[in-house]
Amino acid sequence: MILILKHQATDDQIDHVLRRVEAMGLKHHLSRGTHRTIVGIIGDEEQLREEPLKAIPGVAQVVPVLPPYKLASLDAHPEPSVIEISGVKVGGGHLGMIAGPCSVEDRDRMFRIAERVVASGANLFRGGAFKPRTSPYAFQGLGEDGLKLLREVGDKFGVPVVTEVTDPRLVELVAQYADMLQVGARNMQNFALLTEVGKSHRPVLLKRGMSATVTDLLMCAEYILSQGNANVVLCERGVKSFDPATRNLFDVAAVPLVHGLSHLPIIVDPSHATGRPDLIPACAMAGLAAGADGVHIEVHDCPEEAKSDGPQALLPDQYDELAAQMKSLAGLLGKTISPLAAK
Amino acid sequence: MILILKHQATDDQIDHVLRRVEAMGLKHHLSRGTHRTIVGIIGDEEQLREEPLKAIPGVAQVVPVLPPYKLASLDAHPEPSVIEISGVKVGGGHLGMIAGPCSVEDRDRMFRIAERVVASGANLFRGGAFKPRTSPYAFQGLGEDGLKLLREVGDKFGVPVVTEVTDPRLVELVAQYADMLQVGARNMQNFALLTEVGKSHRPVLLKRGMSATVTDLLMCAEYILSQGNANVVLCERGVKSFDPATRNLFDVAAVPLVHGLSHLPIIVDPSHATGRPDLIPACAMAGLAAGADGVHIEVHDCPEEAKSDGPQALLPDQYDELAAQMKSLAGLLGKTISPLAAK
Amino acid sequence: MILILKHQATDDQIDHVLRRVEAMGLKHHLSRGTHRTIVGIIGDEEQLREEPLKAIPGVAQVVPVLPPYKLASLDAHPEPSVIEISGVKVGGGHLGMIAGPCSVEDRDRMFRIAERVVASGANLFRGGAFKPRTSPYAFQGLGEDGLKLLREVGDKFGVPVVTEVTDPRLVELVAQYADMLQVGARNMQNFALLTEVGKSHRPVLLKRGMSATVTDLLMCAEYILSQGNANVVLCERGVKSFDPATRNLFDVAAVPLVHGLSHLPIIVDPSHATGRPDLIPACAMAGLAAGADGVHIEVHDCPEEAKSDGPQALLPDQYDELAAQMKSLAGLLGKTISPLAAK
Amino acid sequence: MILILKHQATDDQIDHVLRRVEAMGLKHHLSRGTHRTIVGIIGDEEQLREEPLKAIPGVAQVVPVLPPYKLASLDAHPEPSVIEISGVKVGGGHLGMIAGPCSVEDRDRMFRIAERVVASGANLFRGGAFKPRTSPYAFQGLGEDGLKLLREVGDKFGVPVVTEVTDPRLVELVAQYADMLQVGARNMQNFALLTEVGKSHRPVLLKRGMSATVTDLLMCAEYILSQGNANVVLCERGVKSFDPATRNLFDVAAVPLVHGLSHLPIIVDPSHATGRPDLIPACAMAGLAAGADGVHIEVHDCPEEAKSDGPQALLPDQYDELAAQMKSLAGLLGKTISPLAAK
Repeated sequence: MILILKHQATDDQIDHVLRRVEAMGLKHHLSRGTHRTIVGIIGDEEQLREEPLKAIPGVAQVVPVLPPYKLASLDAHPEPSVIEISGVKVGGGHLGMIAGPCSVEDRDRMFRIAERVVASGANLFRGGAFKPRTSPYAFQGLGEDGLKLLREVGDKFGVPVVTEVTDPRLVELVAQYADMLQVGARNMQNFALLTEVGKSHRPVLLKRGMSATVTDLLMCAEYILSQGNANVVLCERGVKSFDPATRNLFDVAAVPLVHGLSHLPIIVDPSHATGRPDLIPACAMAGLAAGADGVHIEVHDCPEEAKSDGPQALLPDQYDELAAQMKSLAGLLGKTISPLAAK
Repeated sequence: MILILKHQATDDQIDHVLRRVEAMGLKHHLSRGTHRTIVGIIGDEEQLREEPLKAIPGVAQVVPVLPPYKLASLDAHPEPSVIEISGVKVGGGHLGMIAGPCSVEDRDRMFRIAERVVASGANLFRGGAFKPRTSPYAFQGLGEDGLKLLREVGDKFGVPVVTEVTDPRLVELVAQYADMLQVGARNMQNFALLTEVGKSHRPVLLKRGMSATVTDLLMCAEYILSQGNANVVLCERGVKSFDPATRNLFDVAAVPLVHGLSHLPIIVDPSHATGRPDLIPACAMAGLAAGADGVHIEVHDCPEEAKSDGPQALLPDQYDELAAQMKSLAGLLGKTISPLAAK
Repeated sequence: MILILKHQATDDQIDHVLRRVEAMGLKHHLSRGTHRTIVGIIGDEEQLREEPLKAIPGVAQVVPVLPPYKLASLDAHPEPSVIEISGVKVGGGHLGMIAGPCSVEDRDRMFRIAERVVASGANLFRGGAFKPRTSPYAFQGLGEDGLKLLREVGDKFGVPVVTEVTDPRLVELVAQYADMLQVGARNMQNFALLTEVGKSHRPVLLKRGMSATVTDLLMCAEYILSQGNANVVLCERGVKSFDPATRNLFDVAAVPLVHGLSHLPIIVDPSHATGRPDLIPACAMAGLAAGADGVHIEVHDCPEEAKSDGPQALLPDQYDELAAQMKSLAGLLGKTISPLAAK
Repeated sequence: MILILKHQATDDQIDHVLRRVEAMGLKHHLSRGTHRTIVGIIGDEEQLREEPLKAIPGVAQVVPVLPPYKLASLDAHPEPSVIEISGVKVGGGHLGMIAGPCSVEDRDRMFRIAERVVASGANLFRGGAFKPRTSPYAFQGLGEDGLKLLREVGDKFGVPVVTEVTDPRLVELVAQYADMLQVGARNMQNFALLTEVGKSHRPVLLKRGMSATVTDLLMCAEYILSQGNANVVLCERGVKSFDPATRNLFDVAAVPLVHGLSHLPIIVDPSHATGRPDLIPACAMAGLAAGADGVHIEVHDCPEEAKSDGPQALLPDQYDELAAQMKSLAGLLGKTISPLAAK
């Protein structure tokens, strides 16, 4: 931690700063420059983060030298983590191909869509049973009935299923049915929820909040890891921007950025990132080319009848075509796609 | 609702669109322009919002003509709402002056700070017992002990107390102690929590998310109102921006914008909006001048020892000076500050 | 300047860094912490800024300790500057009240609007003769004829006139007619233009770019100051945001932020910041309450016939009402509005 | 154009709106809904854009149905344009591989770098002679001497050269030496400059402004096209964001977005978009996978000695490795890279 003192910091203030550092049991290193005095603090930065150093009179700026997360960092785990979701590997060269409708809807449709996306090469099936909707009047999901249906689909096709959990009281219930728990973008900083999924034994798909920095995202992963659940897959799904042309702004650079900071896998979700089927294939390919550990795509066989997010879904035929292109690209990049266990 | 069709929309597609509208029991109004065909849909827009109209082949753009919230709108309630928090009025010309430390800390400090801010004119006292911290290793608040302490302070000084609730499981507990429940910016779209506070009988202070539009904020208020709790006060506390000079960007225009759309009061929180004590007084004054129904300020008597957010707190003397300026401005603007009930 | 070295920086790399610093004729100060090594560089930070320090192998981060501008800083000039525009003072307690139509249009209209806004208390009159329009097919302004008309209006009412210059080749021409040169938001970083207005003897109104930080704005002022023209007034006019409800996001905190960093006056322009007449009065008042040195408002007597930006103009009656409120607030704040010289 | 009227619009106001539309020689189409009245205007939207329709009393919202650009749109030119820069093709399946240092510096270095990047497969060489620097005290480029040196390099290696022009007065001079003129991000809306490069016979590389929407970018291309110069290549180079981890936010979705709206080629510049050599290769690959018509990379053989932007440059060896990967990906995507003419 480095403290840059104010131009006008008095000798008394400098003394006070040094005494405060000593009182924390830490060493300091004073450097008087032409224009500013700087205090380097030597010791456990973790402990220092908790201290309101910037509020000490005379301090102009506090510059941390270490990232605020530990377990999620490459320092803690220099090799890429490979997360297993009921047999399907994600990370370290293994691609997670997640596909399925936004919401779990009627039974026949679920089976039809799952059959198609699994045939195209998806190795994880998604569908929402509890939907976080911006309107209280919108369809909120089928609840436990949706979970049961999802489980049935998973069992039938031998594909692990992913679904969102939105309430700390529901984590246990959802974990009974789903192979992987999704924490959505709007709940990325719902710390009560993060703590509960951290206590669960299920792998977690943690989506980046719409205005979360990559550091914020890794801190939220740290919440989960710190509760003992090491199986976290991150997901870039677009951030807020000034351009209304797309629903969000797809931040593809977050992929190599995460890989340079953390061992956790990161996949991309061009469906939510762009909200536009015409842009999804290009952004899916871009994500893979940037090194993503998987791609999350919403697929629906009749978007104009979808209970939610229909306008951003690909048709099964469109997904099939994209999946073929993604397989070619994966080959070029030396990545593999975990096959499903034989049923 | 207006549907703008694609340039290349075929007659068959146009027919399909019209039949879909009729199937919903609604009327349509077709208008063929030089370059585009437009379909006006006449009827309950609420119902239409649920339909994935944009996914209908041939549809280029869907333009809603009504806001997506109802109970929060001026149409539902043309006069400004006046919210009463245990006797203190906010809205419709009454200013809520909220002050207090970020976290509830030790007992003596709480009483010392409360005495000072109440003497300066604060009519609502704040303090966090459950803290949503971005690091799992940071101080998470005193929990129920903090609530008890806060209640004691409220009773002693006759000032209603406001505190944050971060978990739907804790709403009932917090409502036992606090006069007003705060939903923080990171939980603005935690719909499980909104639903629970909507079922509570306590007034709610709903803070705007860091990347929420004003429409998003009003939709979240709608969640609470739709559960039967009409006592919602909104709070502008800064949005994300590209300029690192301030913690967030204080969106003062949100104040008149909300007043033109909704009957709900809106206060400003320059402490979180700027994160800088040197900017707080100017932004507090700006908020009032823009018509805000109150001001939320963090005050601490020794910021360098604060358990959280110390660097953004004002000292009691600074708050006293600012409160005097705010009172003068309130006088000029014809606003009143509810006095505390005599103890 | 502080260099934070990479975790893995080798002794050879550290040596190379130190030799590079010495080769620049500067001293260094090495501090080896538990996790990172830090090099403080003592000497002229101006010179160091030019060096690609971050590209030196082993360097992780470069932390400057001084602002990158000099002449614009409070260090160079601790008292607020008072800029005189043909007798009207702006800054240091004097408010510049700029009003007028977006574009200079027909002669009668100009005289009618000027008469009204001067009667309401405006002490600077604006109107665009060269318009930077986002469409090549839009009205581009009357050019020199517009300048002549503006001069006539200024002379008739004894009010200094402000107009935009968009091209370095036109600075001399515009300076012949106008009392103050405006550099618009889109040209804030048009360095060729800044250099030319810096050579002019006319005061400059420098508008903040839509995605410029306050530091960026002050660096552009520095360009002008460094050419010898010390008469710069800054203008906050909104920055880009994710919320489409307003044209831009009015950053009122930029006012106290600039006052804490620079001696230059800063005014606010709620017309461009919000693009909505219904929000302009509240934001004008907010700007003044935050300490702005003036307010820039577009006024048109028939907005639906305006050649540009009609939808964001106030009517003369609306301006009159707002001006009265602004005068009351100015009184409360102890600010004065320079009267016009008697004709 | 669709006008959505206000809830409270009176019959007189509706009449006035209709008469105004008729006075413009256009037809209207009135549709009275349950909550709102809508007026469709049939006729030349170009003409309507110029009218301040939103300022007409009773009008709540104006919804355009056509894009504001014409020559740049796919309607005007349904096939992708192929731009030729002294023999090198960009667009329609041809990739422009631009590489070179940020600034033109000393002669030997220019030849060394050019030799390396051409050997790696670059088919356009870049280098700045006139630099738009944010500090007036920073290196501003070698000027005409730099242009001469660049021309020499181009002639020696048979590679077309690209360089930035920052001042309308310099367009003719720069066009004498360079094969392609670059308009930088900060000058994207410098309309005087756009007009001058539009009159030039040289192809133009138009970089997207840091807070420009894709529509803004296409409008600026329209400025150039409307002056008669059809040879415009667009460039995505990152937009402003709230995350300080990267210099800008690389908006890879802009590539398919532009391809769906315009016939103009678009390349990506991961050097400026990220500002971090460690992220450049992944983002370059992402851009190509998204369909970009080329990649712009800064290369320097000793970044720590670069006169500008050293920290974001790749070393020649790094570029060589990346170029090989980009060639493989181009092969997979069926794109070709124009070879240089034999010298």
